[in-house]
Amino acid sequence: MKATEATLSLGTAPDPRGETRSPQALRVAVIGATGYAGGELIQILARHPGVRITRLMADIKKPLPAESVHPSLRGRGLPVCELPHPEDLAAPEVEAVFLATPHQAAHDMAPVFLERGLRVIDLSAAFRLKDASAYPCWYGFEHRAPGPLAEAVFGAPELYKEKIRRARLLANPGCYATSVILALVPILRAGWVNVERGIICDSKSGASGAGRTPSDKLHFPEVNESLRAYGLFNHRHVPEMLQLLGLAQKDFVFTPHLLPINRGILSTTYVRLSKSRTLEQVVGLYRDFYAAAPLVRVYDDGTLPEIQAVAHTNYFDVGFALEPATDRLIIISALDNLGKGAAGQAVQNMNLMYGFDEVTALI
Amino acid sequence: MKATEATLSLGTAPDPRGETRSPQALRVAVIGATGYAGGELIQILARHPGVRITRLMADIKKPLPAESVHPSLRGRGLPVCELPHPEDLAAPEVEAVFLATPHQAAHDMAPVFLERGLRVIDLSAAFRLKDASAYPCWYGFEHRAPGPLAEAVFGAPELYKEKIRRARLLANPGCYATSVILALVPILRAGWVNVERGIICDSKSGASGAGRTPSDKLHFPEVNESLRAYGLFNHRHVPEMLQLLGLAQKDFVFTPHLLPINRGILSTTYVRLSKSRTLEQVVGLYRDFYAAAPLVRVYDDGTLPEIQAVAHTNYFDVGFALEPATDRLIIISALDNLGKGAAGQAVQNMNLMYGFDEVTALI
Amino acid sequence: MKATEATLSLGTAPDPRGETRSPQALRVAVIGATGYAGGELIQILARHPGVRITRLMADIKKPLPAESVHPSLRGRGLPVCELPHPEDLAAPEVEAVFLATPHQAAHDMAPVFLERGLRVIDLSAAFRLKDASAYPCWYGFEHRAPGPLAEAVFGAPELYKEKIRRARLLANPGCYATSVILALVPILRAGWVNVERGIICDSKSGASGAGRTPSDKLHFPEVNESLRAYGLFNHRHVPEMLQLLGLAQKDFVFTPHLLPINRGILSTTYVRLSKSRTLEQVVGLYRDFYAAAPLVRVYDDGTLPEIQAVAHTNYFDVGFALEPATDRLIIISALDNLGKGAAGQAVQNMNLMYGFDEVTALI
Amino acid sequence: MKATEATLSLGTAPDPRGETRSPQALRVAVIGATGYAGGELIQILARHPGVRITRLMADIKKPLPAESVHPSLRGRGLPVCELPHPEDLAAPEVEAVFLATPHQAAHDMAPVFLERGLRVIDLSAAFRLKDASAYPCWYGFEHRAPGPLAEAVFGAPELYKEKIRRARLLANPGCYATSVILALVPILRAGWVNVERGIICDSKSGASGAGRTPSDKLHFPEVNESLRAYGLFNHRHVPEMLQLLGLAQKDFVFTPHLLPINRGILSTTYVRLSKSRTLEQVVGLYRDFYAAAPLVRVYDDGTLPEIQAVAHTNYFDVGFALEPATDRLIIISALDNLGKGAAGQAVQNMNLMYGFDEVTALI
Repeated sequence: MKATEATLSLGTAPDPRGETRSPQALRVAVIGATGYAGGELIQILARHPGVRITRLMADIKKPLPAESVHPSLRGRGLPVCELPHPEDLAAPEVEAVFLATPHQAAHDMAPVFLERGLRVIDLSAAFRLKDASAYPCWYGFEHRAPGPLAEAVFGAPELYKEKIRRARLLANPGCYATSVILALVPILRAGWVNVERGIICDSKSGASGAGRTPSDKLHFPEVNESLRAYGLFNHRHVPEMLQLLGLAQKDFVFTPHLLPINRGILSTTYVRLSKSRTLEQVVGLYRDFYAAAPLVRVYDDGTLPEIQAVAHTNYFDVGFALEPATDRLIIISALDNLGKGAAGQAVQNMNLMYGFDEVTALI
Repeated sequence: MKATEATLSLGTAPDPRGETRSPQALRVAVIGATGYAGGELIQILARHPGVRITRLMADIKKPLPAESVHPSLRGRGLPVCELPHPEDLAAPEVEAVFLATPHQAAHDMAPVFLERGLRVIDLSAAFRLKDASAYPCWYGFEHRAPGPLAEAVFGAPELYKEKIRRARLLANPGCYATSVILALVPILRAGWVNVERGIICDSKSGASGAGRTPSDKLHFPEVNESLRAYGLFNHRHVPEMLQLLGLAQKDFVFTPHLLPINRGILSTTYVRLSKSRTLEQVVGLYRDFYAAAPLVRVYDDGTLPEIQAVAHTNYFDVGFALEPATDRLIIISALDNLGKGAAGQAVQNMNLMYGFDEVTALI
Repeated sequence: MKATEATLSLGTAPDPRGETRSPQALRVAVIGATGYAGGELIQILARHPGVRITRLMADIKKPLPAESVHPSLRGRGLPVCELPHPEDLAAPEVEAVFLATPHQAAHDMAPVFLERGLRVIDLSAAFRLKDASAYPCWYGFEHRAPGPLAEAVFGAPELYKEKIRRARLLANPGCYATSVILALVPILRAGWVNVERGIICDSKSGASGAGRTPSDKLHFPEVNESLRAYGLFNHRHVPEMLQLLGLAQKDFVFTPHLLPINRGILSTTYVRLSKSRTLEQVVGLYRDFYAAAPLVRVYDDGTLPEIQAVAHTNYFDVGFALEPATDRLIIISALDNLGKGAAGQAVQNMNLMYGFDEVTALI
Repeated sequence: MKATEATLSLGTAPDPRGETRSPQALRVAVIGATGYAGGELIQILARHPGVRITRLMADIKKPLPAESVHPSLRGRGLPVCELPHPEDLAAPEVEAVFLATPHQAAHDMAPVFLERGLRVIDLSAAFRLKDASAYPCWYGFEHRAPGPLAEAVFGAPELYKEKIRRARLLANPGCYATSVILALVPILRAGWVNVERGIICDSKSGASGAGRTPSDKLHFPEVNESLRAYGLFNHRHVPEMLQLLGLAQKDFVFTPHLLPINRGILSTTYVRLSKSRTLEQVVGLYRDFYAAAPLVRVYDDGTLPEIQAVAHTNYFDVGFALEPATDRLIIISALDNLGKGAAGQAVQNMNLMYGFDEVTALI
C-alpha cells in the first residue's frame, strides 16, 4: 500500500499544517514582521519542518494578526504580531531572532539579544560594514556596538559557510549586494579581471526591494509603466559591495533602477578580462567555484538568466556573454530580492547555523 | 544541540533536493509538461516528499529539458521532457499520470492508461461533463469513452473527498469553475438563495489561465494596461458549473474578463437570499461547510479576499457583503488559477488518492 | 508648393508651442494642479488652440514647477504652480477656473469665484448631488452653498448640452458615474429595462482614479498583480448615479474593483429587458441616442469595448451582449478615468461653454 | 463674446474631426498600418491639421477597418486598410508614403514610389546603413537599391534638419538608435569623451518595440513581472549607432533589455571624460547643442529622465550624473519607442519636409 508506506517513511516529520510540530523544533522570532522581507521570512519559516515561529513583532500601533498585513498568510495559525519589546524575548521560548527592521533598530536590538544568549540573523545593514565610521555617512547613525560589529559574520553561504555555521550574529547581505557579489567573486578571486579598466554594474530591481512604506515615489501609478535610475554614484549598497569584493570605489560603478514589477533583481555587469579566455573557461570557473552551492545556478547552455526564472524562488542565477575580440565579458545575474536577496538567504544561513540541510524550505 | 535533534527528528524523510528520495515514493508522469499548468504541477510535485517524477511528456518537436520551457525549474534534476508516447508509460515506472494536455488529447489517452492499471488525474475538461453529448458543442469533439466518462470523479475535494480517495480517473475542475462552485455550493445546498431572481458571476482571471500558446489576443501589449470581457453568455466553463451547482442556464450568468496579471482569479457573485439572513449567519454557514477543508479560507473579519492573498498559493478564499434591506449578497471568491484552480487542486486530489496528508506540498 | 499652402491654410492659428497664442485665447486657471486629474487637465489645455493657462495652484508647501510633479509636462512653458489663493484669481487674467481639488475645498472656493464673475468647472463632487443633505453622510461635510448647488449644471454633454452652454457652475461627473450613466441612460429612458429585476454594475478601475496621495492600499506592490473589490453596497459614487438615472437604491448595485493598471474603467452592467428586443434594436437605440455625441462610440460590429481602446483617449465606448432566451442584456462600457471620466469631459464642457468645437483638443 | 472670437481666430483651420479638412491638406499613405508603429502614425497623422490620410495598407489577408486592429482609432473616419499594392499609389491621391513595414518590404517598395515622384518616409532599417554590404549579415537580404541608399537622408532632425527638408527618401532612425545617438552626439562631437576607455550603453525597452507578431517570447506571462537581456554583443541596431556616432565596434557596447511595459526606452550610458568637466559644463554643452531642438529636453535641475516623463509623448529627454573624482559620466536618456523612437520622429521629419511647424501634432 503506497499510502501507508509513504506516510510511514515520513516518520515523526512535522505535520505540514503545523499544529503538531515536533517539540524539538527550533523556536524563532521575527522582528519587523510587517515588512516585505518579514512577510517572506514568515512564509518560508512556516513551511520549514524543523522550525516553529513563536513570536512576531513589528513597529505597529497595536497588536494585529500577521495576516492583516500579509493576506496570503491567513489561516496559517501564526502568533499575533506584537509591538517590539526586545526584553520580552528569551530562551527557551525563542532561540534565534530574525531582524527585518530598519537599520538603526537592528543596531540597537542585536546586542541585547546576543547578551541574552540568543543567536541573531540580521537582515538590515547594521552589522554588514566592518568600518564603523561608514555608518553615519551611509546610514545616518553612529555605530555604538563595536564588539558585535567585529563579531558579525557576513552571511554569504557560498563564501563563508564554515564561519556561518558558528555565527552568533549573522549580517545577512543586501539584495543588490548579493546580486553583484556572487556575480563577481569567482572571476575577481581568480584574477581574471582587468580591474583598472573599470567594472560597471547596471542593476534593476522590483519595487518590493524599496520596502513597504508608502511614498510618492512608490505610489502605484508612479512606478507602473515606468523605469527610473536612482542613487547614481552614491547608492548605500556600494560600500558593502566594495568591502566584500576588495575593490576601490574608482574602479566600480553601480547604478540601480526601479522596475515596475514586484519581485526580482537583474544585474548586468560589464568587465574586461585581464587576458583572453573562452566562454567555456569562464563558465567552467563559475561551475567549479559554485560546485557545492545548491542555490546557485550557473548557465552553461547559451541562455541567460532572467527575472522570471528566479522570482518566487531562492536561487541565484548567473550567465555570461563574451566578446573575444575585445575581451569584454558581460555577466548577467538574477535573484528574487525577497528570496536569495533577503529572507531566503537568511533561512539558508539559519539552516547552516542549526545543522539543517542547507536548502530546507527553500526549494 | 538543536541541530542534531532537529535533524534526527526528520528521520528518514526525503532529502529536499530529491537525489535520495525514498524508493517507496509514488512514481508519477506529467503529460503536457510544457504548459503553464504542467509547469506548476512539476513545481509542486518536485517538492512533494512522497513523490518522484519519473517521466515528462509534451507535444513538442524533439525532447528538451523541462527547464528550457520553465526556467524556474532549472537545476531540479528533472527528467527530460519527451514527445508523448502513451504506450511508453506503465508500472512500475509510473503509477499515476497527470494529464495537462488539450481536452481531446486527454480524452484519447486516459482510457489507455486506465486499462493499463494506472490512475489518471486529468486537468483537462475531457471527463468533467457527465453528458457526453455536450462535448461536440462545447469542446469540438465527439466523446467516445462513455465508460471512463461515467466512472470519472469530479475532483472537488471539499465536496467529494471519499469518492476521490477511490478514484481511478479524476476529472480535475476548471479554474473558473472552482472559483464559482466553491463560492456557491454551501449557500445553494442550504437553500438560502432565491435562484429564480438570478445569479450573476462576474469573474476576472490572470493571463496564464488562457494557456501558453501565443496569439494576438495574448501578446503582451494587447493584455497589459487593459481589461476585456469575453465569452459573454457562451463560455465553455458554464456547463461544468451548471452541472455541479444543479442550476438551469436561465438562472445563471457567468462573464469572464482577462486581467493584465499572470496569476489569479477573483469572482464577484451576486445572489438574492430567499429569506433574510445576517452576515454572521452566512459566514457561519460557510465556516461550517468548510470546517474540514484545509485549503479553504472563509473571511469572517470584515475584510474581503483579493488576488494578492491567493496568488502563488493553493488556497480558495471566500468572503461576503450583505445588504440587509434588499437581501442581496455579494460573494467574493479568489484563487490562483494555476494553484487551487489547476495544479494545486490536482495534487490535493493525488494526496487524497494515495493517502498523503491532504495539503502535503501545498502550503 | 505644399509647404506654403498648408502653412497659409492655418491662417492665424496659434503656434502649437504656445509662445504666440492669440491674445483672444480663453484664459483659464487650474486649482488642484498637482493631482492626476489636474495634470491631465493641463496636458489637454496646453494643446488647446483657443486656451491659455494663466495660473496653476495646488495645496503644496511652496511654489514649484508643474513639471516637478508631472514630468511629462516639462518644457511646455507652463506657469509655476502656486499655493491656492482664491482671492488672487480675477478677470481679465482668468476667465474660467477648473477645480480639481478635494470636495470640500471646491465647495468653499466655487462660490467665491462665481461672485467674482468667473465661470467654474468643478471636477469634485461638491455640486453634483442636488440633495444638500446627502453631503455629510457621503462626503463628510455640511453643504453651505445652496444657491450654487441649485444652479450647478451636471456636466454630461450627451444629456445636457444646452444647459451646459449657459452654465456658470459646472459639476463635472465622476469617472465611475460617467461610465455607468452613459451606459444606462438610453435604455432606461426608453423604458426597455425591467428595473425591478435589478441592475447590477460590476466596475473595474485603474489606480489613477484613486488619486495621488500615497497610502498602504495604493503602494505599488499592493496593487500590482492583484485585484480587489471595495466599497461594496456603499460607494460614494452611487448617489450621483441614482440621482441621474432616476433609480431607487434597492434596484441598483454598484461594485467597484481596483485594477493593476494606470488608466481606464470598464463597467459590466447586467439588466433584464422589460420585453424581448433584438441586439440590433438595442444597438440602434444607442446609435440614435448618441447620434450627435462625437465622443461616444457605440459598438455595432460584434466586438466589445475594452480598456485598451479608450486609455489615453477622451472617448466613451459602449457595446452589448444579449441572451434572447432570458432577455438578459450585458452592457460593456469603457472610458479613461482621467479622460472622458474627468479632465477630458471637463474640457468638453468648457468647449461647449465657450463656443469651441466640442472636441477641440480631445481627439 | 469669447466663443465667437476664439472660433474666428481659427480661420480656415481644419475641423478636428477631419470631415472638412482643407483641400490643400497633404495627402499621405501608411503602409504597414497594422503594426504598432503604423497605428501610432495613424494616431498622430489623424490629428495633424495639415494632413489627410488617403490610403492605408498592410500585409493582411483581406481588407479590414483600421479600428479592428487599433481599437483606439475607432470612429475616426479612416480609410479601410487594404492589402499592399504599391502600384496603386500615385499623385494626386498620395503625395507622401510612410513605410512601417518589415525591412525587406520597404527595400522593395521605396524605389518604386521614388520613381513615381512620391516622397518616402521609411521607418524600417532598409535605407539606414550606408554600407550596402552590411544588409545580408544584419538584416538577411541583399540590398539591391544602391541609388536610393546613397540618396537616403538619415532622419535625425536635431542633426540633419536642412538635408531632411529636401529629402525624397527619408530613413527614419530606429528607436534604440535614437535613444543612444541623441544621448552621445553632443559630447562625442565636442571631443569630451575618452573613447578608448569604452562606452557602454545599457538600454531597456518596452514590449511594443518588439512589434506585433505574437511569439513565445512576447506572450503576456513571459514578459510580465520579468526582465531579460538579449542580443548581447550582436544587436542589429549597433551598426546604425556606430555609423552615426563614428565609433569603432571595439569601443562601444550596447545591451538591450525587454521591460514589462508597453512603451518607452531608457538608456543608461557610461562614458569616461577625456578631461575633467563639471556637471554644469556638460549640461551647458547639451543645452547649446539642442537649443533649436523643440522635442529635446535637457535636464538641468538635478533630476533625471524616466520613462514616465516621455511615454505617450514625442520628446527625447536627457540628463546626467558625474563623478568628478573619476571623470565618469552617466547619461540617462529616455523616449517613447513609438513616439520620438518611431512614428513621432517620422511625422517630425514630414513636418520639416513639407514646411509645417516642426512640432505640429506632436506636443
